[in-house]
Amino acid sequence: MSITLTQPLDMHLHLRDNEMLQTVAPLSADSFAGAIIMPNLVPPVTTQEALIAYKERIQEAIGETTFTPYMTLFFKPTYTKAFLASLGSDLAAIKLYPAGITTNSEGGLSGFDVEELRPTLTAMSELGIPLCIHGETNGFVMDREAEFVSIYEMLATNFPELTIIMEHITTKASVEALERFPNLYATITLHHLLITLDDVAGGMLQPHLFCKPIAKRPEDREALRKVALSGHPKVMFGSDSAPHPQHAKESCGCAAGVFTAPIALQVLTELFVEHSTVENLQAFVSGNAQTIYKHLTVPQKSITLEQKPFVVPEIYGSVVPMYAGKTLAYSIV
Amino acid sequence: MSITLTQPLDMHLHLRDNEMLQTVAPLSADSFAGAIIMPNLVPPVTTQEALIAYKERIQEAIGETTFTPYMTLFFKPTYTKAFLASLGSDLAAIKLYPAGITTNSEGGLSGFDVEELRPTLTAMSELGIPLCIHGETNGFVMDREAEFVSIYEMLATNFPELTIIMEHITTKASVEALERFPNLYATITLHHLLITLDDVAGGMLQPHLFCKPIAKRPEDREALRKVALSGHPKVMFGSDSAPHPQHAKESCGCAAGVFTAPIALQVLTELFVEHSTVENLQAFVSGNAQTIYKHLTVPQKSITLEQKPFVVPEIYGSVVPMYAGKTLAYSIV
Repeated sequence: MSITLTQPLDMHLHLRDNEMLQTVAPLSADSFAGAIIMPNLVPPVTTQEALIAYKERIQEAIGETTFTPYMTLFFKPTYTKAFLASLGSDLAAIKLYPAGITTNSEGGLSGFDVEELRPTLTAMSELGIPLCIHGETNGFVMDREAEFVSIYEMLATNFPELTIIMEHITTKASVEALERFPNLYATITLHHLLITLDDVAGGMLQPHLFCKPIAKRPEDREALRKVALSGHPKVMFGSDSAPHPQHAKESCGCAAGVFTAPIALQVLTELFVEHSTVENLQAFVSGNAQTIYKHLTVPQKSITLEQKPFVVPEIYGSVVPMYAGKTLAYSIV
Repeated sequence: MSITLTQPLDMHLHLRDNEMLQTVAPLSADSFAGAIIMPNLVPPVTTQEALIAYKERIQEAIGETTFTPYMTLFFKPTYTKAFLASLGSDLAAIKLYPAGITTNSEGGLSGFDVEELRPTLTAMSELGIPLCIHGETNGFVMDREAEFVSIYEMLATNFPELTIIMEHITTKASVEALERFPNLYATITLHHLLITLDDVAGGMLQPHLFCKPIAKRPEDREALRKVALSGHPKVMFGSDSAPHPQHAKESCGCAAGVFTAPIALQVLTELFVEHSTVENLQAFVSGNAQTIYKHLTVPQKSITLEQKPFVVPEIYGSVVPMYAGKTLAYSIV
């Protein structure tokens, strides 16, 4: 059996910069027609110049492969409507990080004051620019996302015309929030469909499965699988593929992030086939995203997968992927 | 201010063997008058010969320092009363591991059938030999200990004369079980009084704080602190100090265990002083244990601590201790 996916999209991707960008961007371009590119560089992407320059560096790293990087700004409450409007189709979304919540998020938001946020969020609503949020409080690690749901609700209520995307959701609480507000959407990663905290810290400690938000409980994974596998129209695939060099993962104080870009479509295909829901995969990896984002221009690119063993490389450049050395059931052909 | 502790005891200690034993045994002997020595060597300690030989290797490693290793057997349901009686005061307790639950526990128990356990547990009841249990199921990592409480209750009910010690408890559920059964007791480690899962995986991943049972939620730590700091007569200090060489901790698939033996009394003193409960420290580190174990002969040895900075070494032999490189407020003088 072969499965062809039309215009597959990764709606949450870290490409980093410099040498790492050169390593990882072509791998995403091999699998996807485009991706929403996270802006948490050092310094974060907050100006037109930085955004355009980063887009050009990505395009250069990809070379001739057909792949559209959909660029994002790092949220600041001082963005004006005129500034955002001037970016036109160069801007796909804005990513909001609470301060210090994950890698390179030090310049993020330290509070959620509606009136402080109103000008920028109103402008985004009017311009149809989605707001992508890393939704975690600084509370206890297993509660951070569930605690953030009240902030999602506050934003969804106060800005009913704003498209709000709960990024890389990991909990039943977030899945339930999806149903309560028409303008709340979500991305779900590959790894959160596969693992729980047991895989990270239940046996030996597994740094390559350590990420933020951390993998949660079995019932949380079940809730995520339910909406992803059913092709629920409010959820999209976003890998949150986050490369770190091997030494930063396999050391004392290991960095957060799972590198899944080169295996994502293969493993998703296996997962959806296994659950007899492969007819929903197209919606999860492309259709829903195009409906939710409205203004994406997606290249006509198809990816075909076949049931043919794929041995995952032990390392790509300096980055160890998820399932390194394992044999997957599906290959991109 | 100086604080003198009489006959301090570590009621749960891993000394390992060979070179590691040579490194760590003297460090425990510097702080304690004696310790309950875990039997999970490879192979586990299950015979009189192995037990005596291990005791002698420990005594040799310690040299002239006054320190009594209280020896334990690795639980097997085939131990007879005659065999256990023949060990006399060479046997302080028996340690029960569910199979595969932690380091070197592969030969542990795979089920809890009362009738299978009855002969050995009845013999232990009659001989006054405490049963020490690593109480975790093979369930989800955050639930394993709470799920095991029903097994503690089953054992406590069926063997009311048996002294049952819930080792290294980490949850509010275990603390509550203590109150329900007169023959249930517990040890509590230093690290579980200090950390939660946040410290292990809330920021960067911290392999040196990864242990089994894994550190739990803030409300669990609160419950542990409450009984420890109050000198609750059913709880005893047991460090579960578990040395692994640095390379086994700082690598992909890191081993479980926190090495606290050389810092335990210093940090406990600071913790109890900070909470204005220093008058309960003697009971927690010695008095309760002597009451619960009944038959321990403890050497007349006192340890005095002073409020004087102690810089924790970065490494002892090949083992990185908890708080490596940090400055503690109290020193042993």
